[in-house]
Amino acid sequence: MKVAVIGAGLIGQAWAIVFARGGCDVQLWDGDEQALDTARALVARQVAELEKQRLLHDAASVMSRIRTSASLEEALNGAQYVQENLPEKLEVKKEIFSKLDTLSDARAVLASSTSSIPASAFTEHLPGRHRCLVAHPVNPPYLIPVVELCGAPWTDKSVVETARSLHASVGQKPVVVHKELEGFVLNRLQGALLREAFRLVQNGYISVEDLDTTVKDGLGLRWAFMGPFETIDLNAPDGLQDYCNRYGGMYQSIAREQTSVDPWDVKVVDNIEQQRRSLLPKTELLDRRLWRDERLMELLRLKNMTDPVVPD
Amino acid sequence: MKVAVIGAGLIGQAWAIVFARGGCDVQLWDGDEQALDTARALVARQVAELEKQRLLHDAASVMSRIRTSASLEEALNGAQYVQENLPEKLEVKKEIFSKLDTLSDARAVLASSTSSIPASAFTEHLPGRHRCLVAHPVNPPYLIPVVELCGAPWTDKSVVETARSLHASVGQKPVVVHKELEGFVLNRLQGALLREAFRLVQNGYISVEDLDTTVKDGLGLRWAFMGPFETIDLNAPDGLQDYCNRYGGMYQSIAREQTSVDPWDVKVVDNIEQQRRSLLPKTELLDRRLWRDERLMELLRLKNMTDPVVPD
Repeated sequence: MKVAVIGAGLIGQAWAIVFARGGCDVQLWDGDEQALDTARALVARQVAELEKQRLLHDAASVMSRIRTSASLEEALNGAQYVQENLPEKLEVKKEIFSKLDTLSDARAVLASSTSSIPASAFTEHLPGRHRCLVAHPVNPPYLIPVVELCGAPWTDKSVVETARSLHASVGQKPVVVHKELEGFVLNRLQGALLREAFRLVQNGYISVEDLDTTVKDGLGLRWAFMGPFETIDLNAPDGLQDYCNRYGGMYQSIAREQTSVDPWDVKVVDNIEQQRRSLLPKTELLDRRLWRDERLMELLRLKNMTDPVVPD
Repeated sequence: MKVAVIGAGLIGQAWAIVFARGGCDVQLWDGDEQALDTARALVARQVAELEKQRLLHDAASVMSRIRTSASLEEALNGAQYVQENLPEKLEVKKEIFSKLDTLSDARAVLASSTSSIPASAFTEHLPGRHRCLVAHPVNPPYLIPVVELCGAPWTDKSVVETARSLHASVGQKPVVVHKELEGFVLNRLQGALLREAFRLVQNGYISVEDLDTTVKDGLGLRWAFMGPFETIDLNAPDGLQDYCNRYGGMYQSIAREQTSVDPWDVKVVDNIEQQRRSLLPKTELLDRRLWRDERLMELLRLKNMTDPVVPD
């Protein structure tokens, strides 16, 4: 399987690793030749680190499957799947998708990593619009496996299905979003929880630190391997419906106090920022991101034991 | 430190384990003598399992610190902290707290495990109401360490502080909820996310299985060791405020579609229940709960490596 990765920034680099780790031949391209050289070095470093962390098997063979391409034509040559990662600007997406549709094999699937622009906004004008979709990763996709697949109204169901099998075959966890919507699913769920978190801090119910503790030492533990529906399904003797009968009233009553649509208040954001900075000075953000990635790697190794993410 | 655990159902049993594992002497009491015998056997079995799972060090010494008491007076004798776990009925709570206030040492802290009744509803009439609060666990507290502490308006700050240090000293993760509110914090956050999850399934955007995947292989991974505020703090180059500036507009726009306060629709609940039953037949609920507890144990062992929960 040949995959073209278009755009060699952080997300493009990460996709190259994911597909090469999963056994695909990757052709990586960027309009900026120097960016491409930098990308190759950064990918090599990250692949070595993942091998050290036992999150891939053979760094050398993974690297041997990643080639950089001197031109877009070369990158697309023979590719059955294309993952695009250019800047989040509508005009940029329109232009690159026109080129991809013209230059790629007519049967290739064309996917964009965009987190904010629906496929319909940049594919409507294309003869090959039926083969275009969004495949939205969480950064970095070699540590966080979910991928949200969301087509335009004219995207073929079989194209979504092809993308789903490809991502599953390289160890990702694709989910299908059946109709376009702002934020797809992950950020909408995150937004709903964040809004309540901001509200509780704003109204003096809890500190930023304690709110995070409530999630990381409570709610988030089960969600890390079950998700919210399975969690409540197991939390009432007779399953989910039983849970809804028991607690639906309480949740509805709470929901009546969760309807604000105001922007996040500037003073509240200031207050939360200050609380975060007293917990973690700005100078330590970078170190803490490395710490986060180590924790994600440990968690992924743990989940691999029962449910392998890294293909053999 | 002597702790009285009042009520020997599942939550009472679990608290006995938590406090004895943390080095306290536990006096366990229940109005039903047979329930008390059953509880002792179940606690012994669970303590042995936790030792096997390397989540406590010495089952025999933990068990030696748990005694069952023949009377409420005996259970309260010398106890500096009382954790009450009777049925979730206001009248039951009122009656037991009157007894606890009368019979316990005047300096003892009196805490209820209630998840739904605020402390003010069952302590207002008591001479010792300043020493009463809610200490709400997540089940089972020996695997899920967060405890929500929430006093009534008349609860002494020093009493909340005493409860906080005690819970922290036995390896729990206490958080302080500064004012009474329905659902405390954990269930309000859960409710906000669940409401959006129901909405997305109801409107045909995603399946139950894929929604759970979005959380367990995406959102929930970071929340399992960071919480939502630290997550966004690390997700923009310059920290949380930077994140809010970049994405606040998107989240506000999404929030405008998240304002429904209708009860969960019966047909939607039916639909979700059916999807869950095709993923997990009702006959397998029990096995899956054991699977869940094993995963929680693994996750706890992993978190113990960097941030010990089980005290030595």
